[in-house]
Amino acid sequence: MQFERIVFFSDAVFAIAITLLIIEIKVPHLDHSAPDREFWLALVKLIPNFFGYFFSFFVIGAYWVGHHRIYGHIVRWDYGLIWRNILFLMAIGFMPFSTAFFTEVFPPRFVPLTLYAATFSAAGLLELWQWRYAVKKGLIDEELNPTLVSYFSWRIMSLPTVGIVAILIGLISPILSGFAFFMMPVAQTIINKRFAINTDRMEVIENELETEN
Amino acid sequence: MQFERIVFFSDAVFAIAITLLIIEIKVPHLDHSAPDREFWLALVKLIPNFFGYFFSFFVIGAYWVGHHRIYGHIVRWDYGLIWRNILFLMAIGFMPFSTAFFTEVFPPRFVPLTLYAATFSAAGLLELWQWRYAVKKGLIDEELNPTLVSYFSWRIMSLPTVGIVAILIGLISPILSGFAFFMMPVAQTIINKRFAINTDRMEVIENELETEN
Amino acid sequence: MQFERIVFFSDAVFAIAITLLIIEIKVPHLDHSAPDREFWLALVKLIPNFFGYFFSFFVIGAYWVGHHRIYGHIVRWDYGLIWRNILFLMAIGFMPFSTAFFTEVFPPRFVPLTLYAATFSAAGLLELWQWRYAVKKGLIDEELNPTLVSYFSWRIMSLPTVGIVAILIGLISPILSGFAFFMMPVAQTIINKRFAINTDRMEVIENELETEN
Amino acid sequence: MQFERIVFFSDAVFAIAITLLIIEIKVPHLDHSAPDREFWLALVKLIPNFFGYFFSFFVIGAYWVGHHRIYGHIVRWDYGLIWRNILFLMAIGFMPFSTAFFTEVFPPRFVPLTLYAATFSAAGLLELWQWRYAVKKGLIDEELNPTLVSYFSWRIMSLPTVGIVAILIGLISPILSGFAFFMMPVAQTIINKRFAINTDRMEVIENELETEN
Repeated sequence: MQFERIVFFSDAVFAIAITLLIIEIKVPHLDHSAPDREFWLALVKLIPNFFGYFFSFFVIGAYWVGHHRIYGHIVRWDYGLIWRNILFLMAIGFMPFSTAFFTEVFPPRFVPLTLYAATFSAAGLLELWQWRYAVKKGLIDEELNPTLVSYFSWRIMSLPTVGIVAILIGLISPILSGFAFFMMPVAQTIINKRFAINTDRMEVIENELETEN
Repeated sequence: MQFERIVFFSDAVFAIAITLLIIEIKVPHLDHSAPDREFWLALVKLIPNFFGYFFSFFVIGAYWVGHHRIYGHIVRWDYGLIWRNILFLMAIGFMPFSTAFFTEVFPPRFVPLTLYAATFSAAGLLELWQWRYAVKKGLIDEELNPTLVSYFSWRIMSLPTVGIVAILIGLISPILSGFAFFMMPVAQTIINKRFAINTDRMEVIENELETEN
Repeated sequence: MQFERIVFFSDAVFAIAITLLIIEIKVPHLDHSAPDREFWLALVKLIPNFFGYFFSFFVIGAYWVGHHRIYGHIVRWDYGLIWRNILFLMAIGFMPFSTAFFTEVFPPRFVPLTLYAATFSAAGLLELWQWRYAVKKGLIDEELNPTLVSYFSWRIMSLPTVGIVAILIGLISPILSGFAFFMMPVAQTIINKRFAINTDRMEVIENELETEN
Repeated sequence: MQFERIVFFSDAVFAIAITLLIIEIKVPHLDHSAPDREFWLALVKLIPNFFGYFFSFFVIGAYWVGHHRIYGHIVRWDYGLIWRNILFLMAIGFMPFSTAFFTEVFPPRFVPLTLYAATFSAAGLLELWQWRYAVKKGLIDEELNPTLVSYFSWRIMSLPTVGIVAILIGLISPILSGFAFFMMPVAQTIINKRFAINTDRMEVIENELETEN
């Protein structure tokens, strides 16, 4: 149960951070007699906030998937892993603030964009730190293919890379910078190619590993 | 544990979304010297919000029951299922905002009603998408009766149908529109009839399936 | 896992409702140059709110213990049980609002007190409904002593009774009414006596039942 | 499952309290036309709040690790343990308020610092109470080394000690007082030395104990 608790505590933090995103969007107060047009306008003004909600839901979701993936191969724990995990969750728990600050002004401005991308990158780097630690300390399944170990590292690394590129582009144009995040699927396709990994096939492998245990 | 995590992460998101509903109801501030009448009035003014709380608690509860039902028959997972589930949870997590916006004005107005019904319908369609995907990819229990597979699809489909009807009625009268939601039990009774399924009996079947595993 | 999900979903709702209590206490904003006396005063003014936090933490905790107790003997589920449980959680999720409204004015006023006691009583009655349903439908452990079944019912019933007494006393004096809640341990001692049950002994019985399974 | 529920309920409360910390940091509202400098300034003004977030995330994380540690050796439960655990969680759930009040003014002032340190110490004392109770009532693993039992007590005790020292220093200088918290690693190193315990080694022992079960 000690190992399970680490995982479920993490899941709970992920779930709360992802659901708190909506709390940061203030509900518009309108008079009952206001025409429908004003109601629509109130929603239109919130489009950047809604976009922030969907985007950060996707981002936190992606980090949860990443956590789910690596913990599918971590079979032992120590306090070093626990503390690295708590640091990682600190970055996840910070996302609702970064998201709200980022989407408060539109079109995006450099400072909020940088805070957002920095939180995003920090989460990625802390996840990588956690994974490399688990590998180094022998906390992972010994039979895990070394290629997969390295593949996971590259895959996690792609996220902070995108975040840092977003900040760099933001120095020139904060509006263009948002597009950096669309590099994520591109980066992952390149990494998949480099490792000659077919995503569907990998799922099969992971499922098999799980059924064996 | 990898499969369990998907389920428990979902449960946590459901639980947080359902409990956050209360946070959106602002506590009235009254002076200690105010007469009892003013305290009662403050509560009376919140009746639409309380109604929204109870109704959305019921709706999120119903989606949780639906998720509980389909995942009782999903026995394998892949990343396609995980991402469809995250998209579905995105709609669930949006419910507290839609509810607060909907109950902010009373009697109901068309725009908030539409947003509410749209969130509600989106959740249903995304749940259906998830279920059809699981069926198509063979992630469900092979021994599950094909009639039940189809029954579940129809059952889930009844929810977005009601939501879309609510929007259509709302075009004519937002006040009448609320009644569309009372079609839910009617729709489910029709579907149960069509499949000649007795609800009590189905529970017995599901319990048996579970005990066998 | 289907049964486990009902329990863990409930636990998550309990945990969120209990932790949201603190969110309803607004943090006082003071100027840095304010004398210590003003900081103390700001805290003193919040004493009713702090009391509400501790008291409701205790109340939700007590309902969680009650839920934990009855689900220790429920071994099967059906959709009737699930829906009764969701209704019960609706009352639990409402507690943060009732608590905030109750502790907003001090000394207590009749209307907020009544809402608080009504929420409290509703939770108890809904828990009782759930337990009686489980007993009637044969969802509990067949070997459970009928005396214990009846004991649990009386024990749960003591909570709404106290709530209703609190409302009645509140009609005369809202300040005295608060003391009604201190009847809880008295009521439970009487019930324990009536059933000749020694609390320590019961724990032993319950633990044994659990170990046997 | 009865024992598991106690642990998972606690984990959920920890996870919510730790994630709510971010909610207490109000998102600055800036005009889109404001210069970058003002955006930076808005963040700079929040530095004490960010520091509070990181520090309290660390503190709640530490208490979670402590809870994880002692429950790794608690193998039986009774209602006395449950209630002591609920009281302990009451202090954890209070942390977001204490943190927000503490970081509201900067440099720190005596009253908020005292409330913060008192919450922190209360959590430690209640954890100790829980652990001593579990030991006394024989709820722990009988084969647990008595030296480890005593070591855990000392380790838990170091936290409230630091909190009380922080309050005492605060009487002279609230600014210096913050440094008291840095005594935590020092205190734990002394305790480790006194028990001749090597942290890495202890992890190995705990892991072994777990694998045996």
